[in-house]
Amino acid sequence: MNFQIPPIPDLHDATLAQRLQHKLDHKTKPLGSLGRLEELALKLGLILGSETPELRAPQMLVCAGDHGLAARGVSAFPSDVTWQMVENFLAGGACVSVLARQHGIALTVADCGVRHDFAPRPGLLDCKIAPGTADALSGPAMTAAQCDQALANGLRIVQQLPGNALLLGEMGIANTSAASLLLARLASLDIADCTGAGTGLDAEAVVRKTEVLREVLLKHPAARIPLEALAAFGGFEIATLAGAVLQAASERRVIVVDGFIASAAVLVAARLAPAVLQRCVFAHRSGERGHALLLAQLQARPLLDLGLRLGEGSGAALAWPLLVSACAVLREMASFESAGVSEKSA
Amino acid sequence: MNFQIPPIPDLHDATLAQRLQHKLDHKTKPLGSLGRLEELALKLGLILGSETPELRAPQMLVCAGDHGLAARGVSAFPSDVTWQMVENFLAGGACVSVLARQHGIALTVADCGVRHDFAPRPGLLDCKIAPGTADALSGPAMTAAQCDQALANGLRIVQQLPGNALLLGEMGIANTSAASLLLARLASLDIADCTGAGTGLDAEAVVRKTEVLREVLLKHPAARIPLEALAAFGGFEIATLAGAVLQAASERRVIVVDGFIASAAVLVAARLAPAVLQRCVFAHRSGERGHALLLAQLQARPLLDLGLRLGEGSGAALAWPLLVSACAVLREMASFESAGVSEKSA
Repeated sequence: MNFQIPPIPDLHDATLAQRLQHKLDHKTKPLGSLGRLEELALKLGLILGSETPELRAPQMLVCAGDHGLAARGVSAFPSDVTWQMVENFLAGGACVSVLARQHGIALTVADCGVRHDFAPRPGLLDCKIAPGTADALSGPAMTAAQCDQALANGLRIVQQLPGNALLLGEMGIANTSAASLLLARLASLDIADCTGAGTGLDAEAVVRKTEVLREVLLKHPAARIPLEALAAFGGFEIATLAGAVLQAASERRVIVVDGFIASAAVLVAARLAPAVLQRCVFAHRSGERGHALLLAQLQARPLLDLGLRLGEGSGAALAWPLLVSACAVLREMASFESAGVSEKSA
Repeated sequence: MNFQIPPIPDLHDATLAQRLQHKLDHKTKPLGSLGRLEELALKLGLILGSETPELRAPQMLVCAGDHGLAARGVSAFPSDVTWQMVENFLAGGACVSVLARQHGIALTVADCGVRHDFAPRPGLLDCKIAPGTADALSGPAMTAAQCDQALANGLRIVQQLPGNALLLGEMGIANTSAASLLLARLASLDIADCTGAGTGLDAEAVVRKTEVLREVLLKHPAARIPLEALAAFGGFEIATLAGAVLQAASERRVIVVDGFIASAAVLVAARLAPAVLQRCVFAHRSGERGHALLLAQLQARPLLDLGLRLGEGSGAALAWPLLVSACAVLREMASFESAGVSEKSA
């Protein structure tokens, strides 16, 4: 692999952390009474390097790609849904489109490898490497060069986006399979614990999906390091997202991680450069089996737990206002002193 | 008691429920994949009586009052903090002020019985019944007439507010004590299970608080029905909120319930008219001991679980965008048919 990981400095700054904590502790509220919103405020202050952090021009990046493995019957929906949903994102009718509009989040859709020719239009980036990955049961999903290219695309996309926050979204029929494979391999877990219903398989179909994925793992025994596993299992959208995560981290952007597939991209990125996790806010615990294990690998505690399992970045968009609130608390809340409020007496 | 409960019709409407569910099921997403956001959308559709529900002019009502019981050392902060925080709400520096601003929620503060003379100003309603309740350890916190008056104030306040959604907030040093007493009495629970640290008592002080509250319960053995318990334990802000909940329910407004104290007001209202719960969305599970038990009494499953324990309506404001999202999903998301997306194949 020729892919160069951008420099991602350690964000550790004891002085700033202390200042942020002091500021939070003197806001007009009982100590610690905003619970995890205070942890979030501290984290955002550290990422953005400010005692008065402000989120600017948030960018939802939805990476889309098709999977050769879909032909093995691992998904409840046909592959055509990938391109159809890309059209839906761009037309404004998908869940992530609705939520991005609600919150003033700019939406960019990247065709990372969809099996369809799209007419060019605003909001759609052409990063197509191939019309879908190869079947991972027959060989690697991507060549090493394709994997490098997808990662590089992710870097380049983020370099061209404004703002200081990146929300991760994805679309790709069969991409829970790729995510399950990455989790099982990179975390040395049993594939059965990593495999779920995706878009809605019944119990029997999950068993069949699990058996297919088990065979895929056996087909690629040597693919143990992150980029080799990524090339073996795919997909183009996950690799592009992993690149986007690395670039966003190197630029000190806040990274808002959606569900199972976005978390798998973060897992790959974090195995390449652990400091990316300092920049990640995990939006929600997905209803997809395997996500809890994946979150545990990343030592992540997500903000929401609403049984979401849609993907697209919908969970990241739903959690977004909490990040805005956390920053607003730091910037706008009065202190006991400034508001003339008496402090604790007992 | 002379208080008249306004009529609160049953919202049950099988036809509308079926239409809403059908609409949700045909949106471009795997069936049920928006998890609890779909339940929320269904509930909001039923409350607002529409397949295309739209939240208009949300109103945050922060009811404030002082408690005679504060003199017994049940709170970590002095009573003066109640009026000081009212000033902070109005000046825009409190947490709920910051969050209401973020979300475009109008903020009204009602002085239901604060031990302070406020200069009149926009955003502040004078509903003062007395400068704080009486000491519940010596007698009832409110007379029956005062309790009636506070409830009637709640009705009147909501009648004069625009919009179709009411968010509940409160401020009152020692009001976790009143809420714990109401919970213990109305749900027949041990006061120790209902009593927590409030604004930040240490373990020893919680034990002392619990003993005071146990004595208060012994002082009022006959106060077993909702309004008698409310009069016995207080406070003015809880009674005013209970009235506000009843009026909002009778007008078919969405009621967004904050934490422990707001939930105690809802408990009183729900014991008077169980159909109010059809209109309630519970924003969060508070870190305050007793809230989980209180939520269980109300069969409520809140949206957020972030360890918040500030009150003021801060948790209701944090959850608010989820309600807006749920409505937007119903109104704005495309259907499989309208977007030309293929349906499930397996």
